Amino acid sequence: MTTDAKILLALRESAGGVSGAALADELRITRAAIWSRIEELRALGYQIEAAPHSGYRLAGEPDVLFADDLAARLAGAGVIGRDVRVFEETTSTNDVAEKLARDGAAEGVVIFAESQSRGRGRLGRQWLSPPRQGLWFSILLRPLLRPQETTQLTVMAATALRRAISHETSLEVKIKWPNDILIGGKKVAGILTEMSAELDRVRHVILGIGVDVNQQAGDFPPELRRSATSLRMECGVAVSRAALAAAALRELDADYERLRAGKFGAVADEWENFCATLGGNVTVQIGDERFHGRAEALDETGALLLRTEHGRLKTIHGGDVLPEKRP
Amino acid sequence: MTTDAKILLALRESAGGVSGAALADELRITRAAIWSRIEELRALGYQIEAAPHSGYRLAGEPDVLFADDLAARLAGAGVIGRDVRVFEETTSTNDVAEKLARDGAAEGVVIFAESQSRGRGRLGRQWLSPPRQGLWFSILLRPLLRPQETTQLTVMAATALRRAISHETSLEVKIKWPNDILIGGKKVAGILTEMSAELDRVRHVILGIGVDVNQQAGDFPPELRRSATSLRMECGVAVSRAALAAAALRELDADYERLRAGKFGAVADEWENFCATLGGNVTVQIGDERFHGRAEALDETGALLLRTEHGRLKTIHGGDVLPEKRP
Repeated sequence: MTTDAKILLALRESAGGVSGAALADELRITRAAIWSRIEELRALGYQIEAAPHSGYRLAGEPDVLFADDLAARLAGAGVIGRDVRVFEETTSTNDVAEKLARDGAAEGVVIFAESQSRGRGRLGRQWLSPPRQGLWFSILLRPLLRPQETTQLTVMAATALRRAISHETSLEVKIKWPNDILIGGKKVAGILTEMSAELDRVRHVILGIGVDVNQQAGDFPPELRRSATSLRMECGVAVSRAALAAAALRELDADYERLRAGKFGAVADEWENFCATLGGNVTVQIGDERFHGRAEALDETGALLLRTEHGRLKTIHGGDVLPEKRP
Repeated sequence: MTTDAKILLALRESAGGVSGAALADELRITRAAIWSRIEELRALGYQIEAAPHSGYRLAGEPDVLFADDLAARLAGAGVIGRDVRVFEETTSTNDVAEKLARDGAAEGVVIFAESQSRGRGRLGRQWLSPPRQGLWFSILLRPLLRPQETTQLTVMAATALRRAISHETSLEVKIKWPNDILIGGKKVAGILTEMSAELDRVRHVILGIGVDVNQQAGDFPPELRRSATSLRMECGVAVSRAALAAAALRELDADYERLRAGKFGAVADEWENFCATLGGNVTVQIGDERFHGRAEALDETGALLLRTEHGRLKTIHGGDVLPEKRP
């Protein structure tokens, strides 16, 4: 962890303030060096008050993603979040993660961008990523899975992301199979799972995640206003992107640990509890084909089991659940 | 097609020779320009004889892979082989094809290398690719398949490659599931299928193919001498790599056309006819797991159907078929 990260961690842990001497002692640098770091953090927008007796106190934080700050918030991460990098702008954070993957980066690295010029969703669709209004990030994983099992990672990501958003906002948050997060029936976040694989072995998976955090209604293009929302629009107040980012990565790390421990079943159970898709009749479009049926459950690979009108179970690994026509 | 490719094509089509005047007329360049090109082709090793009356005649060819020559041999290719590039050395031709794929190259491009410094087989295994002794090449495809259907492409590649080797050498050539080509029970070629995909859609597939053509027994490391062979060792004479490369690409192009026309069943039937694995009892290793049973057939995705000792059919998408212990 960097010195800046350690200072932010110490400030957060002592709400009453921490003295320059104590910080210098803990970090084994001079008080002058501490003062210089504090000045730099202030320049980034951190409101750090200094009082003669109580010392330094964190009174306010800027709405920026700062890698050292995220590292401080994620101290103790297992796999996901032990290496966090923030870019001001990328084409797509998935592109950056893909390059890292090919250069041999260890799994768990997370790439954030304050904006993406070519953010993408499933099937090459555009994903709008305006500067500082949301969380646009990608996670590199190297799971021991076969290609047809990677749906497990989408299920895991949806479960963890739903939990983080729910904790941070106290809103009711649902999952739409396979990769959307909904609030009040509107999409607030999406997950794109990309893999590089041989026939029987995944080389790596990139989980791309986008969360619409602080947009106002007018920030969405007209064609999305009926189907998309942001956390700010649902809460009525701005949401700290750094706090949400850290919460999401903590939950993702915890659920990835569940997966690696062979407990996908527990993750899938939680997923089913919060799924807006299961239990009802749905139409799923895959390419040019459409399948109708009752969405019954997930199977052990994370695929959707659809009970068709002929009574048979059909296994569906990905696709678009279309809105039901209203009577 | 380049001028060099057109000249080679014209020379091959007229075994008796073709006059400089006729060539100049056909290619719409001067006779002096034809003469200059012929000199350059001679410098590359093409033995082009010139006689006062019959004109130019192709009397012999060098054992090099020359993109213009391959283009001439592949005139009329549908998808695979319409763009052929030859490198003197690469890390791995799959790496080059992967970069082209990410830069948006059209499907069908073929990358050859005279040698690879880090040629690879399945599961990251090393693939020896000594200079000019074999064919080391990769093909970029963008099929409309789901990830679990890409086994079809390995099946297709094995079928086409087997046919090409059999035609060029008149040897009996067999297939070992999922990705090896055998002569007399020894491996002479292998296929590595790598994909980039979303959950429900393949972005692109790179078929990497290695054929041991002109090695002598002593060229193989001792640990491979019992299991590997080359076409030259089996035929007793050197084999033209350029002719084999062109034959392989023509057969691959034809079988890819069968796949796109929805005729995977016909490809799979041919595969089964020449498969050394089907019909017998086999042990398949996938990661740490082993499955025993009778290899019965391919399913419609190209997966192997194994009849286990409990009488159930198990679908296997990839793995290693272990040699049976001899009694």
